[in-house]
Amino acid sequence: MEEHRGPSIGPSVAEILASHAGGTGSPVKTAARVADAIEARGDDGTWLSTVPRDELIAAAEAIERRPGARTLPLYGVPFGVKDSIDVAGVPTTLSCPDFAYVADATAPAVQRLLDAGALYVGKTNLDQFATGLNGTRTPHTIPRSVYGRSIISGGSSSGSALAVALGQVPFAVATDTAGSGRVPAALNGVVGVKPSRGLISTVGLVPACKSLDCLTVMAGCIDDADRALDIMIARDDGDPWSRDRGPRVSNSPVRVGLPPAEELEFFGDTAMRTAHLAFREQLARQHTIVDVSLEPFLAAGSLLYQGPWVAERLVEFGDFLAEHPESIHPVVREIFASGHRYTAVDAFAALQRLQELKAHVNRLWQGVDVLVLPTIGTTFTVDEVQADPIRTNTALGHYTHFGNLLDLCGTAIPIGLTEDGRPCSAMLLGAALSDDTVLHLAAQILDESRPVRHPSPAPIPTEELL
Amino acid sequence: MEEHRGPSIGPSVAEILASHAGGTGSPVKTAARVADAIEARGDDGTWLSTVPRDELIAAAEAIERRPGARTLPLYGVPFGVKDSIDVAGVPTTLSCPDFAYVADATAPAVQRLLDAGALYVGKTNLDQFATGLNGTRTPHTIPRSVYGRSIISGGSSSGSALAVALGQVPFAVATDTAGSGRVPAALNGVVGVKPSRGLISTVGLVPACKSLDCLTVMAGCIDDADRALDIMIARDDGDPWSRDRGPRVSNSPVRVGLPPAEELEFFGDTAMRTAHLAFREQLARQHTIVDVSLEPFLAAGSLLYQGPWVAERLVEFGDFLAEHPESIHPVVREIFASGHRYTAVDAFAALQRLQELKAHVNRLWQGVDVLVLPTIGTTFTVDEVQADPIRTNTALGHYTHFGNLLDLCGTAIPIGLTEDGRPCSAMLLGAALSDDTVLHLAAQILDESRPVRHPSPAPIPTEELL
Repeated sequence: MEEHRGPSIGPSVAEILASHAGGTGSPVKTAARVADAIEARGDDGTWLSTVPRDELIAAAEAIERRPGARTLPLYGVPFGVKDSIDVAGVPTTLSCPDFAYVADATAPAVQRLLDAGALYVGKTNLDQFATGLNGTRTPHTIPRSVYGRSIISGGSSSGSALAVALGQVPFAVATDTAGSGRVPAALNGVVGVKPSRGLISTVGLVPACKSLDCLTVMAGCIDDADRALDIMIARDDGDPWSRDRGPRVSNSPVRVGLPPAEELEFFGDTAMRTAHLAFREQLARQHTIVDVSLEPFLAAGSLLYQGPWVAERLVEFGDFLAEHPESIHPVVREIFASGHRYTAVDAFAALQRLQELKAHVNRLWQGVDVLVLPTIGTTFTVDEVQADPIRTNTALGHYTHFGNLLDLCGTAIPIGLTEDGRPCSAMLLGAALSDDTVLHLAAQILDESRPVRHPSPAPIPTEELL
Repeated sequence: MEEHRGPSIGPSVAEILASHAGGTGSPVKTAARVADAIEARGDDGTWLSTVPRDELIAAAEAIERRPGARTLPLYGVPFGVKDSIDVAGVPTTLSCPDFAYVADATAPAVQRLLDAGALYVGKTNLDQFATGLNGTRTPHTIPRSVYGRSIISGGSSSGSALAVALGQVPFAVATDTAGSGRVPAALNGVVGVKPSRGLISTVGLVPACKSLDCLTVMAGCIDDADRALDIMIARDDGDPWSRDRGPRVSNSPVRVGLPPAEELEFFGDTAMRTAHLAFREQLARQHTIVDVSLEPFLAAGSLLYQGPWVAERLVEFGDFLAEHPESIHPVVREIFASGHRYTAVDAFAALQRLQELKAHVNRLWQGVDVLVLPTIGTTFTVDEVQADPIRTNTALGHYTHFGNLLDLCGTAIPIGLTEDGRPCSAMLLGAALSDDTVLHLAAQILDESRPVRHPSPAPIPTEELL
């Protein structure tokens, strides 16, 4: 047992900007450092493609030469992009080589980062077709959590979480339909911010469930996530779900909702339960606590994973499933195929039920600002997931499945370790467009909980992870 | 050919209240007048059940005895209710005798009218299961338009429109999923107000398409509709689609949207085209006109009637269809059965497409306040509808199908006659929650157009209609 493993968050956006401004660093030096760090890891399943070292340095030089570059908000800040999002001239693969195509255009949200001076580093691994919460559903190297011991990376945005947790980039673009941005954040000790649907354009994202998909940000801290979000968030008429950002945070005290402890599910993981309840106790000492039943939230989660939404994936992938079944990861193929079981009557019945749950939850928000839950109830090893791929995945999504269905925003934050050294993460959920309230509380909790967090160790050598 | 037939609107709500307040009338006298008027018509297909004369008079007496009754906003004002909406102790039949049940509770929207002193008169005929826009899909007497010559009543709220057009009640409760409240208003020269979805509780309504259903009001004038709406509109936690009323009307000048004339469809009915274009000319002299293409609206309409939403009716009626197919009107049965053709993939694909159209239309509303269209492009006779029940019905819904899908509010108002004496109706559409803007413009147009309207004749004797 190796204790105290965990993320090795690199320099923050603020630190990188300061070093570039102060002359101790430069975009080119940062590019070289990133290339070194990625090369040193070898193929650990984090990246599916990276900009070659010479091209990355050339891109950093180009940023340096840009008129006014030094005042850009992300001047020379490196970042990764989940490989379900288009970057012009780069293959978009969704971890499915036979599906891959070279993108003609860059997703507007990524383009906004480039325009802000950020340095594109490469495409990160994912559960194939963004279908999974565990990271093992890839034909490439299966990534592992930075906490070692064969713990899964989580997914689907496995590589985006790892690139940040390994200190290679301060933030990475990810996505979250049913937990894909929050679960891998939880398993790698980083921050995963899933904004309200529609704040970040989904143009240039190959959809998983188009009506539920969100672009998200993985980062080492709330400030880094916030800086990336501030650039990425923008109305886009090309995205039918696009909408304006909500009010910036107010100063009124935040009412924190906690479900009764007996409603929490840890799948028998008593160490996780103990750690989470200890975190709640600390939280209760600092904030106004309101009891909130999880019942309508979990009911919506069941609708997603035991209901017809899986059919929405076939709107995008139905033809590919029919024509190239052998090109699809067996577990993903099985899930896709199950979408054909549902009728339109099933879909409308589920949508009606969802509307009831939404109305119920919307009334709850009148009495609470932020609901705090575990992001995941337990962890799994790669072997455990591969032995029982559906049940373990469903367990991983217990607290995340309902987020987009109920139109919530959510942020996963690291809150320490279990007594046996596995990562604990809390998820802060708010009503749609209450993003700033959630981020503000997340930053506050991270500040408060810092004393009890274990120190970050050096990154684990690649060979131990593979 | 009998020219100049049409509605014979009875005393308005204001007139009834004035007579009850002034002593020239009373709730009991009004009840007797209503009972007389209904009895005089015999079975013309307007009502499916009525409160027996003695009970109606007893109910009026009870209203008179209620403490503070004279100040109630609808003191002794008679009204009808479409027979898909529950009134406690009365059968709800949906025009399907084998489906009928006696309601335990009164729909909250109806209860609010009763609490406001209104006098419940009876249940009105409808296209069976509210599935149709023509009025012929009933096992009972097929109602006819008050314009005679075997013109259909329109539907599905056929009886509610007729009860008002015949002067029996000043308003009636109806519904509108795809035009059911606006089309029969158009065919009988009355006002049909379909508020934004969620303003009036749908609790106690047997759903047609639950995600799209609206309770609506038929009335002889905007003021009557407005008085009923003011009572009926209220949040209801029992209705998951319930939401608050929008801003009350502002004083800013209304921008009236008109589509290019070549985008209007009159199905070869040149008399209707001529009348509508003349109305538009008059409108353009009085209001600021903005060009608005109908394309995204009609695209949403096609989604509804050539897409999977018909399956939503089976969420409610699937079991009855399976168990009692022979109890269902053949045309309705065929429509219901077609709902089984659609998969969940079809449903999600259509919902995604709808979201695109909604986003498009939402941008249009930035430049226009109220879109003015024909309510119907042509009229049909009962024989024409029965000879070709699907095509004629689809034509009737050309301008109404998309209203609830795109979350619009709409009001149909009578604007005169074609040169051959058939009814013309204009439909005013606004964005969700712009109800007051729409109603305000509707009242203004009715005032402006009054001079060109034909005088209302006496009601047509029943025997001519049957």
